[in-house]
Amino acid sequence: MQKPSIPKGTRDFSPAIMLKRNYLFEKIRHVYKKYGFLPIETPCIESLDVLMGKYGDEGDQLIFKILNSGDFLSKGSKEDFEGGSKHLMPLIAEKGLRYDLTVPFARYVVMNRNDISFPFKRYQIQPVWRADRPQRGRYREFYQCDADVIGTESLICEAEIMMMINDVFASLGFEDYVIKLNNRKLLTALADYLGKPGAEAELCVAIDKLDKIGKDRVFKELVDKGFKDEMINKLGPLMDAKADNRTLLKLYSDTLKGIDAASEGVGELTEVLDLLASIGEGDLKVELDLSLARGLSYYTGAIFEVKPTSVKMGTIAAGGRYDNLTEVFGMKDNSGVGVSFGIDRIYDVLDELDLFPVQNQDSTQVMLVNFDKETSMQSLQLLQKLRGQGVRSEIFPEPVKLKKQFGYADKKNIPYVMMSGSEELAKQKYTLKNMQTGEQVLMSFEEIIDLLKK
Amino acid sequence: MQKPSIPKGTRDFSPAIMLKRNYLFEKIRHVYKKYGFLPIETPCIESLDVLMGKYGDEGDQLIFKILNSGDFLSKGSKEDFEGGSKHLMPLIAEKGLRYDLTVPFARYVVMNRNDISFPFKRYQIQPVWRADRPQRGRYREFYQCDADVIGTESLICEAEIMMMINDVFASLGFEDYVIKLNNRKLLTALADYLGKPGAEAELCVAIDKLDKIGKDRVFKELVDKGFKDEMINKLGPLMDAKADNRTLLKLYSDTLKGIDAASEGVGELTEVLDLLASIGEGDLKVELDLSLARGLSYYTGAIFEVKPTSVKMGTIAAGGRYDNLTEVFGMKDNSGVGVSFGIDRIYDVLDELDLFPVQNQDSTQVMLVNFDKETSMQSLQLLQKLRGQGVRSEIFPEPVKLKKQFGYADKKNIPYVMMSGSEELAKQKYTLKNMQTGEQVLMSFEEIIDLLKK
Repeated sequence: MQKPSIPKGTRDFSPAIMLKRNYLFEKIRHVYKKYGFLPIETPCIESLDVLMGKYGDEGDQLIFKILNSGDFLSKGSKEDFEGGSKHLMPLIAEKGLRYDLTVPFARYVVMNRNDISFPFKRYQIQPVWRADRPQRGRYREFYQCDADVIGTESLICEAEIMMMINDVFASLGFEDYVIKLNNRKLLTALADYLGKPGAEAELCVAIDKLDKIGKDRVFKELVDKGFKDEMINKLGPLMDAKADNRTLLKLYSDTLKGIDAASEGVGELTEVLDLLASIGEGDLKVELDLSLARGLSYYTGAIFEVKPTSVKMGTIAAGGRYDNLTEVFGMKDNSGVGVSFGIDRIYDVLDELDLFPVQNQDSTQVMLVNFDKETSMQSLQLLQKLRGQGVRSEIFPEPVKLKKQFGYADKKNIPYVMMSGSEELAKQKYTLKNMQTGEQVLMSFEEIIDLLKK
Repeated sequence: MQKPSIPKGTRDFSPAIMLKRNYLFEKIRHVYKKYGFLPIETPCIESLDVLMGKYGDEGDQLIFKILNSGDFLSKGSKEDFEGGSKHLMPLIAEKGLRYDLTVPFARYVVMNRNDISFPFKRYQIQPVWRADRPQRGRYREFYQCDADVIGTESLICEAEIMMMINDVFASLGFEDYVIKLNNRKLLTALADYLGKPGAEAELCVAIDKLDKIGKDRVFKELVDKGFKDEMINKLGPLMDAKADNRTLLKLYSDTLKGIDAASEGVGELTEVLDLLASIGEGDLKVELDLSLARGLSYYTGAIFEVKPTSVKMGTIAAGGRYDNLTEVFGMKDNSGVGVSFGIDRIYDVLDELDLFPVQNQDSTQVMLVNFDKETSMQSLQLLQKLRGQGVRSEIFPEPVKLKKQFGYADKKNIPYVMMSGSEELAKQKYTLKNMQTGEQVLMSFEEIIDLLKK
């Protein structure tokens, strides 16, 4: 007899939490669908060939590997054992758990290129696994919630993704956020402008920390990395600039004049803002931010992330454009742009702000009391009629003390309890108790259905 | 540059398949909710301590084990390596992928016993993994779709599960099935009656094959197992009996008279049938079947399975009552009853019978043609209005040849294409093409919304 537990960094989701999570997933899924994205699913298990080498050395370490089934040592010799874990691993494990949804999506696109009608708009909501050190808010098993358009360079896609972000949070009743927007090409141009062409990686790693550590320490870090004072001096005004988006674009355009990547980057940003303006979505919370550089090794155009403004919380959604997603699997020139919502963080934000609805669309609306065997048979008839009308309803399965039955309804957060005892069945009028107010009303069955169908 | 593939026995689900799968999941989920079941989710990864020893030796072999992360060999010596795979495995793997949803559910109940309000009605729809030899219709990664009530012996639960099965298949438009129903106690009684008390396992393994191999071969198998001719002679009339449920119950009751387990089993079956009759669900397709013995080591009361009658296909749903689910984790006397729908098989049945709806509730309803940059900005405004009304809609992201745009809509099975060129925008009348009939109609925007919101 063992005391059971679950692996570190994994979670059980109870009904109370699942109802909220499903509410959240459903809102996002609803918006994805409204914008013409279709679902795909890929296996949780992938070949290590597909996964390894896509996330850097550290990423490779964090992939959970699955032991070959059967006699997994058959391919290894004693020498292999002596070679240590790293040497032995490929001989005893050929599969792993996916690390994100992006690489499996790229694999999917390449394997199904002949059946896909491009541009391909897909969404995917599935768990991923990382052998990270578990800590508050970081899990070893968690859901990702991605939407991507692949196979077009049209900036309409960027604009639509901004609108989707807006739609998702509006439908969740959450307004206090900004969408930070940047473009990889501007970062390339910036390195050029400073006189360090190609050094955008070092540059970005530093300026990405602007929010966290402040300008002085960012500049110090840049100096440590070999950026000269004159470069820092040129960078200063661009970093300091606080203005509306159009003014910033003009500043970037003027300052970085003559650099091809700059005019491309400014052009793309302008077009995205124009598209948003043309829809009359002037209230979209987009803010240009030249210091935004997430996933630099990956994004080639737009880069964006969503940050709450009223709650202390990191990025709750992010994405960007990539040109090389499928190249590693042999399919070139396939530009795409995508967004990923951070489900766990959004959950925490909504919970903190009390934005989850009190009455959930998925949980039981009414419980029928079980008085005795005789009346419960008749109650079952009423129950089937309720369900026939789409009312989520149940009967307490045993004729135990009322206190226990009401306690169950209370704990399960069921808003109404219906009493259909012998007297009530005879009169065809039933007592309906509102569990929140305690109020009890005698009602006809039709009145009860009307109330609950609302 | 590698040619990517997916592991044997796993599947990618394309949008066309996902739309159907989601339709199916949604129908089942809808019924589960209507009957008061609430969702839980458990991690895909479980401790091997939790998983091993629950499914027999063969089951243990079929559990996918996850290599410990980091230097997994640190706990093993050279001698351990020489001990072979079986010996080394526990030293290098502590976690595995769940094999079903039942053991994780039992673990969940035990770990959360103090927070759960019993009887606990939960549903769970998640993937499971088995390192089985892949073959047609058998996968290494597949979804299970379970609902269970735990913490009550009330037979109302059995009756409600029969009703749920009825509801699920009715909502899918599938009528050609029977629910085979038996009770473990009758099987125990049967072994007693034949003069082999306790031999119900051998007995059931044999009679379970009645449908497949016929009576003669079943009897031969029983003789091989040490059943005497006189026993077979006693068994014959019970197996041969074809009659309505009430007549069968009378036969069982009369034949097995004096055996406690028999009167209990007959009593339970009678009560379930009475409950169903009282609801006026006389048309439920329940058929008593004494030869039904699935999961014998596990079920203690009702045993049932659903079989299609018009399509060649095995069991599409099954379940039963168990008294010992949580005992292995130290929680006794916790009776429950559950049902599991076989998603992959039901999918195949619906597909074969063409029962999936042509127009899916999840896919794009209308595509707007992209004529040029100018008009596409105005089309985007229309698009946002459509989406504001809940219409699933998209614009082709590039102003390419119409043929390509229509081809995309066609391949994505989008029922309508809307043309809003400069002339149409000026007149505020738009051409809507029905992609199935080819018919084109000039309509106002309001008329289009009315049509699509239907």
